[in-house]
Parts: sequence; structure tokens; C-alpha cells
Amino acid sequence: MQYRAIFTSTVRLLVRLSVLRPTLDSRYAYEQLVHDVTEQVRAAALRPGDRLPSVRRMSTHCGLSVTTVLHAYRVLEARRIIEARPQSGFYVLPPPEARAPLPRPSSPPPVPREVTSGDLIAGVLESASDPALVPLGASLPDPALLPTVRLSRSMSAALRRDPARATSFLHPAGCEELRLEIARREWGAGVRTAADGVVVTCGATEALSLALRATTRPGDAVAVESPTYFGVLQLIEGLGRRVLEVPTDPREGICVEGLERALATTSGVRACVVTPTVQNPLGAVMPDSAREALVALLSKHEIAIIEDDTPAELYFGDGRPRSLRHWDDRDLVVRCGSFSKSLAPGYRLGWVVPGERFGRAVFEGKQSSTLATAAPPQLAVAEYLGAGGYERHLRRLRKVLRENVERLGFEIAGRFPDGTRVSRPYGGIVLWVQLPEGSDALALYRTAHAHGISIAPGPIFSAGGGFREFVRLSAGYPWSERTDRALSVLAEHAGGCGGP
Amino acid sequence: MQYRAIFTSTVRLLVRLSVLRPTLDSRYAYEQLVHDVTEQVRAAALRPGDRLPSVRRMSTHCGLSVTTVLHAYRVLEARRIIEARPQSGFYVLPPPEARAPLPRPSSPPPVPREVTSGDLIAGVLESASDPALVPLGASLPDPALLPTVRLSRSMSAALRRDPARATSFLHPAGCEELRLEIARREWGAGVRTAADGVVVTCGATEALSLALRATTRPGDAVAVESPTYFGVLQLIEGLGRRVLEVPTDPREGICVEGLERALATTSGVRACVVTPTVQNPLGAVMPDSAREALVALLSKHEIAIIEDDTPAELYFGDGRPRSLRHWDDRDLVVRCGSFSKSLAPGYRLGWVVPGERFGRAVFEGKQSSTLATAAPPQLAVAEYLGAGGYERHLRRLRKVLRENVERLGFEIAGRFPDGTRVSRPYGGIVLWVQLPEGSDALALYRTAHAHGISIAPGPIFSAGGGFREFVRLSAGYPWSERTDRALSVLAEHAGGCGGP
Repeated sequence: MQYRAIFTSTVRLLVRLSVLRPTLDSRYAYEQLVHDVTEQVRAAALRPGDRLPSVRRMSTHCGLSVTTVLHAYRVLEARRIIEARPQSGFYVLPPPEARAPLPRPSSPPPVPREVTSGDLIAGVLESASDPALVPLGASLPDPALLPTVRLSRSMSAALRRDPARATSFLHPAGCEELRLEIARREWGAGVRTAADGVVVTCGATEALSLALRATTRPGDAVAVESPTYFGVLQLIEGLGRRVLEVPTDPREGICVEGLERALATTSGVRACVVTPTVQNPLGAVMPDSAREALVALLSKHEIAIIEDDTPAELYFGDGRPRSLRHWDDRDLVVRCGSFSKSLAPGYRLGWVVPGERFGRAVFEGKQSSTLATAAPPQLAVAEYLGAGGYERHLRRLRKVLRENVERLGFEIAGRFPDGTRVSRPYGGIVLWVQLPEGSDALALYRTAHAHGISIAPGPIFSAGGGFREFVRLSAGYPWSERTDRALSVLAEHAGGCGGP
Repeated sequence: MQYRAIFTSTVRLLVRLSVLRPTLDSRYAYEQLVHDVTEQVRAAALRPGDRLPSVRRMSTHCGLSVTTVLHAYRVLEARRIIEARPQSGFYVLPPPEARAPLPRPSSPPPVPREVTSGDLIAGVLESASDPALVPLGASLPDPALLPTVRLSRSMSAALRRDPARATSFLHPAGCEELRLEIARREWGAGVRTAADGVVVTCGATEALSLALRATTRPGDAVAVESPTYFGVLQLIEGLGRRVLEVPTDPREGICVEGLERALATTSGVRACVVTPTVQNPLGAVMPDSAREALVALLSKHEIAIIEDDTPAELYFGDGRPRSLRHWDDRDLVVRCGSFSKSLAPGYRLGWVVPGERFGRAVFEGKQSSTLATAAPPQLAVAEYLGAGGYERHLRRLRKVLRENVERLGFEIAGRFPDGTRVSRPYGGIVLWVQLPEGSDALALYRTAHAHGISIAPGPIFSAGGGFREFVRLSAGYPWSERTDRALSVLAEHAGGCGGP
């Protein structure tokens, strides 16, 4: 029997691991079993329709308790990797890509445009911060997943130690300890910077704003991924710059050849905003070869590279992909990041590592736009990072978000109408969903809102109002009955909203 | 004897007051005596060189203890209103205006200009936040004058009550309780607004930035007082607008006739930034008649009025002057304020009350520039204001700042070279000093820095680099030996810095 062989290999793996790790306990064993089965399904060693060994047989062969195996099977079931059929056993389900393939790479018109969706974005942002709505709109994790209590303690400790410092005007570029911690983390992405190379900002939004202002002037064009985070489009609009949208692949990110073609016919492009690791909304991660080619192309044209690395904290893979700075010998890369996705959205703490070339302009922009960043969040986060434990928190957070994202992807694939396509992100919080042809994402957005559900409609991710058949859904909160009901509403209206 | 009459009138006044206020205690009596003598000196009823009654005689006639009278005389001495001459008694000093008259009203060229002093402003701001320097540069109060411990307690209380709220993304316009408290305070300036008419910002700097962006476009001209707060000039530069500088009187603020003449010959003016109460750096307060005329003029031209009311919290007079909104029936006034001068510079908390006309644009600008304001400072200040005590704190703060400002003014008048002129502000923290003709404020700025003293040189208060003979000095810290030494250095170099 086929699964017998798989089963044996699973056992062999478990035995090998238990030899290597004598402290292996049952909790670890269940996770390992879940992992092994998942990997074998992914590698097509276990195929859709295959039956798994019964709980009792698996238990005997693995030397695990029945409860442990059953728990592992239930987790696999919750993740839609297997299903239980009554009076029969556990069967492998088809992979989600069979039911809902990836969205196609984008192909925006290769001309700079002005941003037109301001009102809509404001509405989406307001509904995204409305706690009465089912939160499928904002790209933010459930606050229960964040170390709120530990941060509160860090804040109190910092205030106790020096109350006057928390109310005083800190250095415009941020408090020294925090800049040092950020510089240390930048080394993890292969970026060599000292504390004085860091400018602390009011979130990634101000970071991107400073980077854009330092590298471009009104009337210039800025190349962006298509689709891209609507906040970037709003910023570009607010600063009087134009947007050049570049074809982007849902797995590999911005298309370097597409950008090259666009640059050949467009003048006045002075900067390119790119999120090479966990692009928002696609979840794409650029391979190293594409990163290298991108930097080479932009260097040739002397175009500034604004690298938004905020979502990289939530990369699901091992290690951390290298910053574009790694291939940058012209000092063109301006790095932006923030703690909003991983620690405390409400602290509004981000940073820029601008390099030498744009350093002075970014620093002066910071002074003129907000003078300095609020002191209490800086002191609290410096205290928190200094105490250690952030990496452990990130590992836990990524694990939960990965489960949430996979679960939501499975549900969409299984319940949305035929013709739906859905992204398979390498990290982060969101899924990019292409509805069946002829759907109207704005109509679905309004219907969802009427049903108490916040979602982000595709057109806000494009300057010209493209992506009319797309929505972005957030998996920041664990699957719940409330999400389940919300998804039923969305699935019901997803296909039938072709507006006039 | 002349002072005998004065003395009798003082006693009469004291007796009348003690009838009216049976709870009059000796602490109040000393303050009253200080007040009465000061007023009579100001009204020239007591003249320079007049001798006051001896402590013993004053004591007998007023029915006050010798200690109380002596204390009042010492306070008057500290304020440089009287001086003690050994073996002789207490004599009235010449008023400061006799030694250093007011700076003359400004007369900038009536053409819009681009701002040119970015580098210099950055340097001044950096030195202003450097604790190693004698702090005569920044317009900030001594942290010891701010309720840092009470704010820390408010912060801790807010965090304890709801740790997750402090880390969560609040509404882009700010947390409800804080907006309500700000709306209530706005009523005190005669501005009728509800909480949802308030947008909380990252300090007054962001508030002014949002107001400018909502009311003007790149290339437009913005009318400003001359001199004006350099942050406003930086903002206008950063946004690609031009500056139209308007003559401004050191006592009565922006000159409405001067503005009218400039508007007659200049096109493209779309907004006017004005600080009617305690202008920075002059400390001028516009009389109601001038406020009314200003609003009428700008309404006629349909020019937006950006009213920076931040320093009004530090107005030395009774009550609070009425907002320009009082005369505004075209919804042209956008009000900006902040807690940076009165509560916690490091919290970076300001606000805009934009009115209906510009409300949407300000709100969308807020979202696109920083998304939202940091949560912990908002929650802490809402808690602090809700508990009461802010008004009491403000009264104390104004009293101390008034003493500091008067003392610094006296010292400058007495010690700076002949030909020096100095402002007499109606509130706030700073003095505007015109050095003798031919002086070079930038040279003095550099010399001061070399001696470990921060000051703000005049040219940063003008777009075109005017005010080369002016410096702004801050009286945010109480007089000390350190300030005394610093002032000697400044006085020594104030006249002799005529550069090449």
C-alpha cells in the first residue's frame, strides 16, 4: 500500500529525530508529524484522495500516544490538508492551487498616472480601524498575538527610570538606544549601518514619505509594483509626484524586464518603491537573481531605490532574504521599516536607513515634517528590544500567521465561486484574491460593509483604478465562527456583483 | 514726599482689598505689594531713582510683617524693578525700555521668495536638543516646570486599564477622549467644535503641514509674519510653496495694511499663517480690531487663514484672546495647536480644527502622511486632562515663565551694548533681540556655540535670510549662574561681530 511506504518513511524520520534530540516530547512529536505529512503532501509523495494510516496504527508505529496522533490529524484537518470521512478515515485533500490557481501577473499600462482613489482609501482605512467590523480589511495582526503586556511593562520601566526623558524633546533622528537596536537588526538583513545612520519615524508611512521627498521632486514619476500598497500611492499623490505601475508576479515580485521596457519609453522616473520580501498585497518574495538584476537596472538609470522592508519581519521562510543594499554600490538604496506589523501598530514607530547620498535630505525632511518622533514609544521599544525576546516573539507570530493565512487560503479556494484565484504568500498577513471574471470588487466592498465586514477592494492598489476584480483579505486574526460567517457572505456575493 | 503719596495709595488699595477679601493672608499680601509697586513703576507714578519707603515704615503702614515686606522688596529687586543701595534703601530702576527699546516693525520686500536656510535650521535644531549646551536656543520650557511625574502616572494608569489599546492602531483622527478634551479647550478660545471636528497630529509641525497641504498647492504663495517661526518656513519650502513675508509689529503682530499692500501686487497667495496670540519670536498679541480687519481682508481675497494658536496657552494676560474664527463667516480659519510648549514636548501631540471647508482634506492628509498619531501619548494626555489640574498647572507655568522672560529682558537691557533693542512679549518663552547696527547674528551664533551656548540666529526667521542683526533668546529655564555666564559671553560678543 502506497501510504504504508510514506508511513514508514515518516516513522523513520521521527526515529532519526528522536535520536538526534533526546528531549523530544510528545508536544514536539505532534508538531513534527503535522510537519512531515504536510511536506509529503506538498512534495506530492502523498496525493489527493490517499488515505492516511488509522490513528491506532500510526500510534503504534510511531511510538506516540493515540491522543498525540489524533491531535496531529485534527490540526491537519483544520489546515485543510486532510479531511475526515465518517466511518472511513482520514484522506488527503487536493492542494488549494488545484481549486484556485494564482492570480495572473499584472500588466498595467506603461504610462505614469495620477492617483485618483483618495476618497475610497480614506473610507477603507476608517473601516479598517472600526472594531465593530469583522477585520478582513487591515493588514494588521490580532492584538492578542502581540506582546502588549510586556511592552506596557517596558514602558513603565522606562518612565520610572527617567520620567522627564519621556516628556522631553528627543533628538530629531530618534533616541540613541533605539537607533542602536534598529542598526543591529539591519545587520540581520545584511545592511551595515551604525546607529547614526538610522532616522526614527512616525511609522513606515512617514519613512516612505521622507524617502520619496529626499529622492524626487514634484512632477517626477515614481515606479511602483502593480498592485502595490495603497499608502504608497496616497503618499505619491500627496507629494505631487506621478505613478508608473510595473508588472508584478504574484510569486517573484516586480518584473525587471517589465520595468526595463517601461523605463525605455518613460522619462522623469527618479525613484522606484519596491518591497522585495513579502510584497503587499501579493506576498511575493524576489529571488536573489531578480534583486541583483533590479539594482543593476536602476543603477544604470541612476534611479533611487526605496526598499520597504517592513513585512520582511513576517517572512515565513528560514533566515532573512538579503536587502537590495547588498548589490548596491551606488548608494541608491533607501531602506524603510517599521514595528507596526510585528510589535505595536499604535506606537507608530518606523525608521529609514537612507545611506550617505540621501542621508541629509531625509534627516532635514524629518525635522520639517514632524520635528521628532514621540518619545514614550521609542523608550518602551528600546527597553523591550534591549531585554531580548523579540526574536522568540517573531517566531511565534510568524507560525500563527502562517497557519491563519493557509487556513484562509484553503477556505477561499474551497468556498469562493469557480474562476476565483488566490495568492500563496511567502509571509505576512494578507491574501490577494482575483474574483471570477466580470466581478465588481467595489460592489463586494460595499456589500461586505453593509454586512459588518471590512475588506480592501482591489482598485485602491492601483493608481488608475485597475484591479476591479480583486480584493485583499487579511488573515491577521485566527479562524473563528465570526470569520467563517463573514467568508460565507463574501463567497455568496463574490461572483454575482458584476455592476452596471 | 512723592513716594509718601504712592505709599498711601498702596496702603489704601491693600486695605480695600482686605475688606473685599477677608481671607487675605500674608502670602497674598506680598504678591499684592509686588504687583502694586510694579504697576506704579509701569504707570510712571513711581519714577526711576525714587526711593521706596523703608521696610519698617512700609510694614507699619500696611499692617504687614517686616518679613513680608522684605520678601516683596527682594522679589522686586530680582525682577530688576528696584535695586538695593547699601546703607541707603531701595530705589526704583529705570524701565528696561529706556535702556533697550523695542525692535522696529519689520519691512520685508513685498515679493514671494523661496526659503534658503535649510542647513542652518537643521544645525540650530540639533544644537537646541543638545543637553550639553546652555539652552537659550529652543523655545521650550525647562522640563522641571512640566508635570512629568503626573503624566507618567497618567500613562501608567492608561496602560494598566487597557494594555492592548496602547499598542493598537487608533482612529486616524485620534482617540475619542482626547479629541473631546481638545474640543472643550477650543471652546475656551471661542471656537465651537465637537470632538469629530478635531484631528490629532504629531505635534504642531504636522498640524501646520496638514493645514498648508489642505489649503494650497505647489507653486502657491503663503503669507507669513516677518519674522516668523522657522518651522513654518521649512514646511513651506518642503511642500514647494513660496513665502510672502508681511511687515509685523513687535507688540501688535501682523500689519494688516502691510498685508493689504502686498496682496494688491502679488498673485497666487492662497493661505496666510498667523499667530495672533503670542507670536513667535516677537511675543506680539493682536488687538481684537486688528484680528477683525485681518479676517475681513483675507475673506475678501478668499485666502485660507492658518491660525497657529499653540503659544496662546502661555499668554500672560487674563482670559484668553478670541480666535480669528470668531470673525470668520466664510469657514476660512484652520486652527492649529499643540501640547508641546505647555505639557510634554516629547509627546509630539498637536491638533488641527480645520472647519468644514478644509476638514476632509486635512483628514486625508493625516492618513497619507503618518496614518495615525502614536497611541500612548494620546491616552496619557487624555487621562491627565480628564483628571483635572491642567489649568492650575498652566497658571503656575505662565507665572514662572513671565518671571523668567522679564528677568532675561532686564539682563539683556542692562548688559548688552548700546543700540540693542529687545521685545517685551505678552506671553511665551522667548525674546527677540535686535543687536547694534552692523552686528552679525550668524557670527554670534557660531561664537555662542563654541562657548557651549545655543541661541537662534535671526536669519532663520526669514525666507530671504533677513534679520542679520537679530537673535532669539529663550527664557524657558529660570535664571541661574550658568545663564548668567552665558549672557556675559553673548553681551561681550554681541556688538563686535560685524563680519567681513
